[in-house]
Amino acid sequence: MARTGIATVCLSGTLEDRLNAAAAAGFDTVEIFEADLIASPRSPEQIRDHIAGLGLTISLYQPFRDAEGAPPQRFAATRRRLRAKLELMDRLGAGTLLICSSVAPDTIADDDLAADQLRQLAELAAGHGIRIAYEALAWGRHVSTWEHSWDLVRRADHPALGLCLDSFHVLSRTDRFAGIADLPGDRIFFVQLADAPRLDMDVLQWSRHHRLFPLQGGLDLAGFTRTVLASGYAGPLSLEVFNDVFRQADPHRTAVDARRSLIALQDAVDTPGEAALGNAVSTGIAFAELGVGDDTDTGPQLETLLTALGFTHTGQHRSKPVQLWEQNTARILLNSGVHESAIHAFALESTDPEAAARRAAHLLAAPLPRRRRQSEADLTAIAAPDGTEIFFCRTAPPSLPAAETRTTPLGDSAPTAATRTTPLGQHGWLDDFLPTGETPAPTTGVTAIDHLSLAQPFDRYDEAALFYRTVLGLIGDEASEFAAPFGLIRTLAIRDPERRVRITLSVPVLRRGDWAPAVRHPQHLTLATDDLPRTASALRSAGVPLLAIPGNYYDDLDARLTLDPPLRTRIRDLGAMYDEDAHGHYLQLFTPVIGGRIFLEIVQRVGGYRGYGFVNDPVRMAAHREQRLHAHSPR
Amino acid sequence: MARTGIATVCLSGTLEDRLNAAAAAGFDTVEIFEADLIASPRSPEQIRDHIAGLGLTISLYQPFRDAEGAPPQRFAATRRRLRAKLELMDRLGAGTLLICSSVAPDTIADDDLAADQLRQLAELAAGHGIRIAYEALAWGRHVSTWEHSWDLVRRADHPALGLCLDSFHVLSRTDRFAGIADLPGDRIFFVQLADAPRLDMDVLQWSRHHRLFPLQGGLDLAGFTRTVLASGYAGPLSLEVFNDVFRQADPHRTAVDARRSLIALQDAVDTPGEAALGNAVSTGIAFAELGVGDDTDTGPQLETLLTALGFTHTGQHRSKPVQLWEQNTARILLNSGVHESAIHAFALESTDPEAAARRAAHLLAAPLPRRRRQSEADLTAIAAPDGTEIFFCRTAPPSLPAAETRTTPLGDSAPTAATRTTPLGQHGWLDDFLPTGETPAPTTGVTAIDHLSLAQPFDRYDEAALFYRTVLGLIGDEASEFAAPFGLIRTLAIRDPERRVRITLSVPVLRRGDWAPAVRHPQHLTLATDDLPRTASALRSAGVPLLAIPGNYYDDLDARLTLDPPLRTRIRDLGAMYDEDAHGHYLQLFTPVIGGRIFLEIVQRVGGYRGYGFVNDPVRMAAHREQRLHAHSPR
Repeated sequence: MARTGIATVCLSGTLEDRLNAAAAAGFDTVEIFEADLIASPRSPEQIRDHIAGLGLTISLYQPFRDAEGAPPQRFAATRRRLRAKLELMDRLGAGTLLICSSVAPDTIADDDLAADQLRQLAELAAGHGIRIAYEALAWGRHVSTWEHSWDLVRRADHPALGLCLDSFHVLSRTDRFAGIADLPGDRIFFVQLADAPRLDMDVLQWSRHHRLFPLQGGLDLAGFTRTVLASGYAGPLSLEVFNDVFRQADPHRTAVDARRSLIALQDAVDTPGEAALGNAVSTGIAFAELGVGDDTDTGPQLETLLTALGFTHTGQHRSKPVQLWEQNTARILLNSGVHESAIHAFALESTDPEAAARRAAHLLAAPLPRRRRQSEADLTAIAAPDGTEIFFCRTAPPSLPAAETRTTPLGDSAPTAATRTTPLGQHGWLDDFLPTGETPAPTTGVTAIDHLSLAQPFDRYDEAALFYRTVLGLIGDEASEFAAPFGLIRTLAIRDPERRVRITLSVPVLRRGDWAPAVRHPQHLTLATDDLPRTASALRSAGVPLLAIPGNYYDDLDARLTLDPPLRTRIRDLGAMYDEDAHGHYLQLFTPVIGGRIFLEIVQRVGGYRGYGFVNDPVRMAAHREQRLHAHSPR
Repeated sequence: MARTGIATVCLSGTLEDRLNAAAAAGFDTVEIFEADLIASPRSPEQIRDHIAGLGLTISLYQPFRDAEGAPPQRFAATRRRLRAKLELMDRLGAGTLLICSSVAPDTIADDDLAADQLRQLAELAAGHGIRIAYEALAWGRHVSTWEHSWDLVRRADHPALGLCLDSFHVLSRTDRFAGIADLPGDRIFFVQLADAPRLDMDVLQWSRHHRLFPLQGGLDLAGFTRTVLASGYAGPLSLEVFNDVFRQADPHRTAVDARRSLIALQDAVDTPGEAALGNAVSTGIAFAELGVGDDTDTGPQLETLLTALGFTHTGQHRSKPVQLWEQNTARILLNSGVHESAIHAFALESTDPEAAARRAAHLLAAPLPRRRRQSEADLTAIAAPDGTEIFFCRTAPPSLPAAETRTTPLGDSAPTAATRTTPLGQHGWLDDFLPTGETPAPTTGVTAIDHLSLAQPFDRYDEAALFYRTVLGLIGDEASEFAAPFGLIRTLAIRDPERRVRITLSVPVLRRGDWAPAVRHPQHLTLATDDLPRTASALRSAGVPLLAIPGNYYDDLDARLTLDPPLRTRIRDLGAMYDEDAHGHYLQLFTPVIGGRIFLEIVQRVGGYRGYGFVNDPVRMAAHREQRLHAHSPR
């Protein structure tokens, strides 16, 4: 595996903050971005020692601008400037200098001149034992393609002059990079990697503000990397990402995200088309755990709601204040030991929980301490970027001879009580719950957890998307951006190929400020029902309020769509929201916000609808705002 | 003056939040953006009554999309959709509907068909007494120019069909809009105004995220508006601004900003090339007032610093805990009655303070209550967007027969003490200060206040830029964007034409989050000296520390620039920072941060340098970070 590097400009803070973060995340080497060094109070020697003390090397000093194609007088100043920087690099112990192609307006379009000047500069560098890696900026004045930069390097023909290839500069301009594989690998002195979303804008602004770590954007980083490695390049793969968010986010978190992207990239390069460690497949959401929080109202509210929804409190944890509620395959834990009411944790049903845990560790997911008793199930847990705890499990039926007390149906194909004994050595997490003996309520139609919706911390959205895809082996699905009452919101769905695990992530386009009275980091749990009218009727009978959807919404629905009259009437009568796609349609009900940031959604997918109803989110959010304005308690 | 309107989509919050804010800011009329109505729990009739109760009218309902050029089957659905919306508009009491040009992929490029369909829709609308204003979206599938939209309206030839002109859609595509003046004004049914910075990007994304209020961007809003009015158009001038920041900022503040932009635009249209009420010219900064704050260290630190800088505590306010410090024409007030150490206030020296105050009121600047005693000077004060208090004054010499106690020089051309009597009726603000009789210190070279630097609240940056330009009658100067240690920063200088009043505004590109340990809303006061070495030496003698600039900065300066050796040595010896432009050069010294967010800068402009040293800000910020890390107290 290639050595992993990161440019200091990817991270936030002082130079020390950045170096320390890079080392802590396990990078092998760093690029020193000149502005970060200039702003440091440490001398080059002190910086060199600090970096060595961290176990890092310096693989590149950068950038040196406007070198080649200079008019004679300016070139004299350029030589003088280079000498000063070479002396600095001697002090720093940096062996390779990046020269990026000139952007100065007076640059001369003369390849012979440019090559000759590059040769002269390489000769100067060679005197210091330093190599020059020449890079074509995508917006270079005359040199803006990798082919052109290679042509100049070839013409200059100096052993201290080679190529620097940056995935952004190449891929932002062209998909034709296969020829890189044919370059002599030892003439490629450095490789920088950056991804980016595909944006139609000025390439310089695109590069300066919107770069992302590999696999976070829309460029073909795996193909590019594979091609570069095919040339025989044996240097580090180093990240150079200019990103407005990363520039102001905790550098320790960003550095881990960055290194995760390189590990995932390497996996994608090694095994194209396959998820790394793909033998751990997530086959469902085993449970969602709601923190009840410190507000004394929230617990009773949640219990009333679950009861009305047809859930039964089937189990009580052996050692923790955690209740198990079940209906068909939907399992919800209520944890009153958690201080905030939130989706505190969820568990992924996995074909191989141990392999899933290994993949998570390989991808630098933060493990959570195991706080179990000897007799309890040993579930591996990791922390998602927003702190949500994620467990990997394979739900075995309870091993207790509890036929008489555990009669809650566990789905259509649930084993009968008699078969619910665990084979030797398969101690299941359900065994951690003592049966309450409560009489199961008749199902209201709720069959399963449809998906989880988790608002992400502003600084961690791109990290979260990569985390859920790589660490959990899921794939990106529908993305959306919409205008909520208090600002624009981005949202992205992540799912397994079979649509058994679905999670939506959301984030405001701008970090919310003092004014916006929106729910901070809202989360919701969406339950699937196969009979929405029945579920709604059960809630109504129990006197549980649902979120009131405005009449204007239905008028607009009628204007936009030509629905069958019975369906049209049913939607309005249910107080449901509606969406449709090429496959089918979607009916949605919502509870009010409970305990500050969580609510439940109940949905019915008819005819194979595949979406998440994002189109309805603005109206739903306005309705939640209305509910919070007019009722402090949802009951 | 035209009626002023605003689209609900410009503002943040629920529909009520938006309507209330528009009314409070004094708008005459609103455009109802459909999504805002759909999300409202109020019925159309309730909304109509609420709007009427606020004293507003509804001038437009919008948008109706994908109308013209539709294949026959879709057009039938479009007619049905239009009928539903016309019924809604009847209930709402809205008389004009915006139809924007089709973007649907199946739109047919047939002007005869499109005109005929528009005529049919206009006929439907006419049956409800409703008019249709047809607008060319800049990204319309076939109709994307104002000329094309006018051609269709002309062909359709229906009295209920006219044109909607939107400055963004026109100016984002062309500078050729003079022909609009020749259109029949009564065929222009509506005019929407939006400015935007000039960006090289996809026009749809540019429009959705980056629109600004008039005069906040780079488009020719005054020329466009003048041209539209020349046609005879007599309807409202209505704002339609999609902006990521405004969408999540306090709508009451945004609405005032919005209406200010329309007032300033109207002034610019009425008197092209001249500042409105231009007889009030700002000729300098009369004083800057520093709040001392509640930290007991800050007052003594500031007094020590001012003393070391050569200032003398010349006066004590008659009724408030405010000290007057003077040196040449630089006057600093220390106000220990203010809870936060900050640039609490400043005063603009004005040729006509009353006219300046009238201009401020005309432009909706928030007046501050006058808290003076009978005998004290009557200064008008307004609040800047960040809360800074701004006074308008004409500094009269003190009227006291205080020749023996007030001998502080007031600049080269300061009147002698004998002439410092105020003419009858010209009670000056200096009279509010009782002379302390302190012996003036010898000047250290400090001559004046060079400029003020005020970080702005994230949500208020564009408002602030417009406020300083229009309310204070200043002009925009140099703008910059740079990478500070904790993220990108935007900065903009504002000044009077003669460079006597200079203020720089700054804001992070993204709102800072929990991590970034930067100074929150830093402010600084920059003093001009005509002899930086002398000022520095005075500070050194007094044992006052200056901000330590890293050696790497000087090494880079030497590499980049070919400075005269004596200057090069002087810069390093002084610990100064350096910048140069076509006119001259600039030397800068900084104090540490005092009291949480303020510091002083001392500069010497040599040979007419015109800038602000923005290029040095990243290193200066890193140095301030270093100082704060290693010393809790600057002494």
